[in-house]
Amino acid sequence: MPEIAGVRIATGAAGIKYKDRTDVLLALFDKGTAVAGVFTRSKCPSAPVEWCRAKLKGGTAKALVVNSGNANAFTGKTGREATAFTAKLASQAASCKPAEVFLASTGVIGEPLPAQRFDGVMQGLAEKAAPGRFLDAARAIMTTDTFPKVATAQAKIEGITVTINGIAKGAGMIAPDMATMLSFVFTDAPIAAPALQAILSNTVADTFNAVTIDGDTSTSDTLLAFATGAARARKIARANDPRLKEFRAAFTQLLANLSEQVARDGEGARKLVEVVVESAVSKKSARRVALSIANSPLVKTAIAGEDANWGRVVMAVGKAGEPADRDKLSIWFGDTRVAHKGARDSGYDETAVSNYMKNPEITLKVALGLGKGRDRVLTCDLTKEYVAINGDYRS
Amino acid sequence: MPEIAGVRIATGAAGIKYKDRTDVLLALFDKGTAVAGVFTRSKCPSAPVEWCRAKLKGGTAKALVVNSGNANAFTGKTGREATAFTAKLASQAASCKPAEVFLASTGVIGEPLPAQRFDGVMQGLAEKAAPGRFLDAARAIMTTDTFPKVATAQAKIEGITVTINGIAKGAGMIAPDMATMLSFVFTDAPIAAPALQAILSNTVADTFNAVTIDGDTSTSDTLLAFATGAARARKIARANDPRLKEFRAAFTQLLANLSEQVARDGEGARKLVEVVVESAVSKKSARRVALSIANSPLVKTAIAGEDANWGRVVMAVGKAGEPADRDKLSIWFGDTRVAHKGARDSGYDETAVSNYMKNPEITLKVALGLGKGRDRVLTCDLTKEYVAINGDYRS
Repeated sequence: MPEIAGVRIATGAAGIKYKDRTDVLLALFDKGTAVAGVFTRSKCPSAPVEWCRAKLKGGTAKALVVNSGNANAFTGKTGREATAFTAKLASQAASCKPAEVFLASTGVIGEPLPAQRFDGVMQGLAEKAAPGRFLDAARAIMTTDTFPKVATAQAKIEGITVTINGIAKGAGMIAPDMATMLSFVFTDAPIAAPALQAILSNTVADTFNAVTIDGDTSTSDTLLAFATGAARARKIARANDPRLKEFRAAFTQLLANLSEQVARDGEGARKLVEVVVESAVSKKSARRVALSIANSPLVKTAIAGEDANWGRVVMAVGKAGEPADRDKLSIWFGDTRVAHKGARDSGYDETAVSNYMKNPEITLKVALGLGKGRDRVLTCDLTKEYVAINGDYRS
Repeated sequence: MPEIAGVRIATGAAGIKYKDRTDVLLALFDKGTAVAGVFTRSKCPSAPVEWCRAKLKGGTAKALVVNSGNANAFTGKTGREATAFTAKLASQAASCKPAEVFLASTGVIGEPLPAQRFDGVMQGLAEKAAPGRFLDAARAIMTTDTFPKVATAQAKIEGITVTINGIAKGAGMIAPDMATMLSFVFTDAPIAAPALQAILSNTVADTFNAVTIDGDTSTSDTLLAFATGAARARKIARANDPRLKEFRAAFTQLLANLSEQVARDGEGARKLVEVVVESAVSKKSARRVALSIANSPLVKTAIAGEDANWGRVVMAVGKAGEPADRDKLSIWFGDTRVAHKGARDSGYDETAVSNYMKNPEITLKVALGLGKGRDRVLTCDLTKEYVAINGDYRS
């Protein structure tokens, strides 16, 4: 991972929950860094989510503090005090206002966050913060992830090369009490906060918001983007500025890369599954049908069993509540059409499909035969390991 | 199970899929039997569901044919021909019109139903059909159910005792390709078809429609009610007739009993789980929140792990999309309040809750603190056996 001018990172072990590993990340930003964010739509958001939502209005960031092991969610007044205390510690270490500190927490929910443990490490982190270290950062925020998730991309803005680095964590994409979706993106591109926010909000719809591991939306989902502007003096104010065309493409590619890593590393997952829905009445309708398939436990267990059980895909289409006509429906696993116009495709080669299902990446396509709406989502299979991870977690 | 005057039943082995067990049920009804039905809301319903929907308009039934092992769903023109052929066979055996024959099928979907196999058994079934035999009937329609589901109730209508018998199958409440929800209710009560339909439609909302095993809605869900009227000459025409008060209560109790058996016998289930949501803005909102909890894989795996993981309940409330205020939310497992007004209930006895979670029946209650809406749904836990049953089924 390359360095990003204007970003310094340090990780440490505050002992929030885990032993013998890093669990706290501090990122420091040079003056003038723009910030944008998107968050869980849960009606029960965590204390750090509420903190970030409020502080985003300022548009500038000097520090980011992320911890793993405790989500600081559903922690009431104690939770709000913990965020204020953490921000104060970081603001002292970074010589900035608390309102310029952004926070995220992931891990068990409902347990008070022992934020006083940051007291012993924050100043040290600030002192040792250094460029690069993005892989360390990705490691410090892991919960049940099996690998750290990083990605990098480059783009040119008026001839100047800018870099975008991103890190993410997932596992149960969205699995409070153990693994909630966090991602942080850093760039030296010169973009004003409102433009960065518009690009982020627009990009997330078809990247992170098109991923589901288990359909369980977290209280803590947080995606923050930081633009230091170190690559060029004057900021670009508008998201649709033509000078940002290449940047927008690179940014989208980076989020798509990270979100695919999250799907691939779903809890207990052995297969990455792409669900494509075509010829729906609209893109929105295609998305809903795709999510109905991607969240169906019967579809996901069939894929775990390497069974091209398209009957369950029919079921998931039927239950989605979206316009669908059984007698116009076709289904593919990989390149093989297994069902066509309301019945089994009599010509299909079951051996070829069975072999296809052994792949670690499966594409499942549905054509509804109604209109021009198309969408895709990423998911993973549902295995006994998912049940073991989530049934045995606190015991 | 008592007899129902006007109903005769026979079961046989047509060899549709299973060996060494019954897989076809024929019920014959005396002249004048009223029929009502409710069906899956899937956009991809099975051929028998479409058959029954069309024939319900006639309001009278002479025969019911149910097979297990094949759902005759997503079978196109072949499927429609199979239903017509089966109805014709039954109409010949029962000396009635095909339109007076009702059909249901459960099992694998997408495979053509070999309806010609009914040819060899239908006449014999009609000849041996006899009163009683409801337990045999419940056995013949099982797929992955671990026990046959029967219930009986009585009520008085103007001093005359009427009997209601019901049978059901479930397993993956709703799990095409292997187990779809079917239920059949028989009574000698004198009720006209429109009144029977109104009572059935009204009752199903808080019984069968308030059960979820895995959130996967079948292509084949069918609940048919047959009223022979043998207990009394003149039919009652209106559902809200005061003379039917006791009958309606008994009918509701019977459906509640059967639907609870379906939840208890969910695929791989070890625990029956009741989810109660109180003080929501409306009953409809309470139902949606309850279903969000009951369908959450993380809540269900926690219960399988006997973990009172109320943080996941918070998550499921938060993602439901219904009005909720984190800081007014309280949660109980059994009688123990574990969370109150947005934070852990500091006073609760964790040992008592841990012991409670070992029970085979768990009640999980959420109070939203917003209004007067209340509802409940039944579900079960999510175990490794569910994944095994559904991941290994066709292989």
